[in-house]
Order: sequence, then structure tokens, then C-alpha cells
Amino acid sequence: MNDILQKLETTIHQRRSADPKDSYVASLRAKGRAKMAEKLGEEAVEAVIAAVQGDKADMTGEAADVLFHLMVLLADMELSIDDVLAELARREGLSGIIEKASRKD
Amino acid sequence: MNDILQKLETTIHQRRSADPKDSYVASLRAKGRAKMAEKLGEEAVEAVIAAVQGDKADMTGEAADVLFHLMVLLADMELSIDDVLAELARREGLSGIIEKASRKD
Amino acid sequence: MNDILQKLETTIHQRRSADPKDSYVASLRAKGRAKMAEKLGEEAVEAVIAAVQGDKADMTGEAADVLFHLMVLLADMELSIDDVLAELARREGLSGIIEKASRKD
Amino acid sequence: MNDILQKLETTIHQRRSADPKDSYVASLRAKGRAKMAEKLGEEAVEAVIAAVQGDKADMTGEAADVLFHLMVLLADMELSIDDVLAELARREGLSGIIEKASRKD
Repeated sequence: MNDILQKLETTIHQRRSADPKDSYVASLRAKGRAKMAEKLGEEAVEAVIAAVQGDKADMTGEAADVLFHLMVLLADMELSIDDVLAELARREGLSGIIEKASRKD
Repeated sequence: MNDILQKLETTIHQRRSADPKDSYVASLRAKGRAKMAEKLGEEAVEAVIAAVQGDKADMTGEAADVLFHLMVLLADMELSIDDVLAELARREGLSGIIEKASRKD
Repeated sequence: MNDILQKLETTIHQRRSADPKDSYVASLRAKGRAKMAEKLGEEAVEAVIAAVQGDKADMTGEAADVLFHLMVLLADMELSIDDVLAELARREGLSGIIEKASRKD
Repeated sequence: MNDILQKLETTIHQRRSADPKDSYVASLRAKGRAKMAEKLGEEAVEAVIAAVQGDKADMTGEAADVLFHLMVLLADMELSIDDVLAELARREGLSGIIEKASRKD
């Protein structure tokens, strides 16, 4: 399970060059970054609703949608999921033991 | 980099039982699921803005915030990040080659 | 211009009873409150993007979409726009002169 | 109740020039448009949650927050609430009788 996001990143980069008629990723790229960002926002709202409703099956699907569209956006900005994971590891002290007191509220 | 999310999940589960005064995760748990969902929505909006502004450093941080709060919410719903990654792999045919024609628009 | 929202409220209440095939409001009602809430969230994200992009024409349209879907949701909750306007007037001291020091940040 | 939004607009324009230490509107202006947009997004997420939870008192307050921050953003873009109300009236045919068949889904 560990390298799913890295595989997905490779796939997204490949699909960006496809024909927008054949690929959802390419169609988002053709519509531009604002449209990709809009999709991220929409999927996050759907995840919020699934969470408040306590629907676990819905939440799994919406969380996958959030991750997918986040990665489409990262690709468009020439950022890698590994940049984001490294930032998470740094903040959360995952190499260490103690929770950062500096976590913002 | 591959197991950062699984390590973060373990850390989040540990912190949920901490004193809310000492741990951000415990303080979110004390406020309830709707508050966790609200934080996910807020961070997604901040990621949307960073993306539209084209700010790569901001985007890395906001993407990390989105992932973090998504995982806090998954933990509260007794869902695992591996459930979400498995759903992504299933949809995107990451064990295969061909993009699902069924991707919703 | 002053009674547009009250007229819109009357129209929304009438359309809720229409055939979902003929009326957008009735189709939203048929899909349920979570769908109405989702639409409000989506339109707000689009307004956020239009604002950051500085697109005045887009912003006018998105602000209208936000207001419309907010009112569809209020109608579904048996709340009136006048309840919301009264709350705004109360908070903002619009009958008086001085900004409430208690505005939350 | 009819001219609350127009009064609020006047008040917002006045407060924009105040000292950010004394006025919430001035403090938002000092932080810039992206911050105002972020607040709109946050309040919309809170309204979404109040709606799904069916909490009428919360919803009234969150709807007021959405309207307030929408108007702060309109002021920053040199747009008037009357522009938005006129757009709503035009779309919804409020001077007429028949729902526009062209309502987007």
C-alpha cells in the first residue's frame, strides 16, 4: 500500500499529455488550474458532509476524491507528493517522539 | 517517504488519548467531529487559494494541512488511510494500465 | 432593489412543490438537504476563486449563486431571509452607530 | 428589513478606513483580499455543517456570517450588493413569472 501515491503521481503525469476526450486528468488540465482547484474544494465539501453524516463508505470515497484532486493540483504546480509528505514528517516530528508545541490552532 | 502516512496515523491514534491541553489532536477530538470536518474544509479553501495564486511554498504547507486534517477525521471515523489508498488504487487501476472510462466528471 | 430577496424567497417556496423535471429548486429538494448544502459549498469555492482572480463579472455571478443556494437551504430549514437580515442588523448595530467590539476574529 | 444590506454596505465602506485595531473590517482589509476570500470559504463550510446537522439557530448565525463576509469581499472588489441583487432578479425572472429554463444544474 505504501507506494500508491507515488504510482498515482506517475500516472497523473502521463495522463496530463493525453487527449482531453480520453482522460479526465487531461480534461482538467485543459480547463486550467482554477478548475482543478475548484474540484479540490468541491470534494473537500463532500468529505465534510460525509463526515458529519457519519457515513463511512461515503467518507472513504470522498477522501479518495480529495487525495486524487489534491495530487492533480500538485502536478500542475510542479510539486511532488513527496514534498508534501516530507513537510508532514518535518512538522509532526515523525522521526522523533514529541508533538510540536508549535502546532497552530 | 513511503510509510509517512501510516506513521502519522499511528501518531494521531496515540495523541487522541492525550490531554487536550497538550495535544492539538486531542483538542480537536474534544471539540467533536464537526469541528474536525470544519478544519478540513478550511484547509482545503486555503489550498485552493494557494493554488490559484501559484504560490508553491504555500501550497506545500496547505496540502500538508489538508492531508493532516483528513487523517484526523478518518481516525475519528475508525477508517484507515490504507482504506482510502486501496480505494484510489482500485479506481485508478494502478495495478493495471488503462484509465477507467468510468471516471466521473 | 430592496425586496428582491423577499420576492426570491416566495418564488423558491413556490418552486419547491413543482415537478423536479421542470424546476431546479424542486430537483434540489428531491435530492435532499445535504445536496443543497453541497451546492452552497461549491458556489462559495467558486466565489473565493473569482475574488482571488479579481474577476468582477465572475464575482457578481458567483455571489448571486451563493445567495441563491443559501436561500434554497434556508427555505429547506424553514428559516426566512428576514431572520438572517435581523441577525445581521443586530450584530452590526445597524440601528446604532458603533461597531460591536465583540466581533469575533 | 428591506434595506439592511444597503445599510451594511455603507457601514462596511466606512469601516474599511478605520484603524485595523478598532475595526474587524479594517483588519480584514489590512490582511488583503485572499484573507477575506478565505473567511467567506470558512463561513460557508460552517453553514454547510449547520445545515446538515439541522441546527436552525446555528444556521441563522452562519448564514449571517456568509452574507457579511460576502459583502466585505464585494466592497473590496468595488462591487455593490445591488449588482448582485440585480443579477439574481435577472436570472430568476423576478419581474416575471416563469422560471428560467436555462438554470444550470
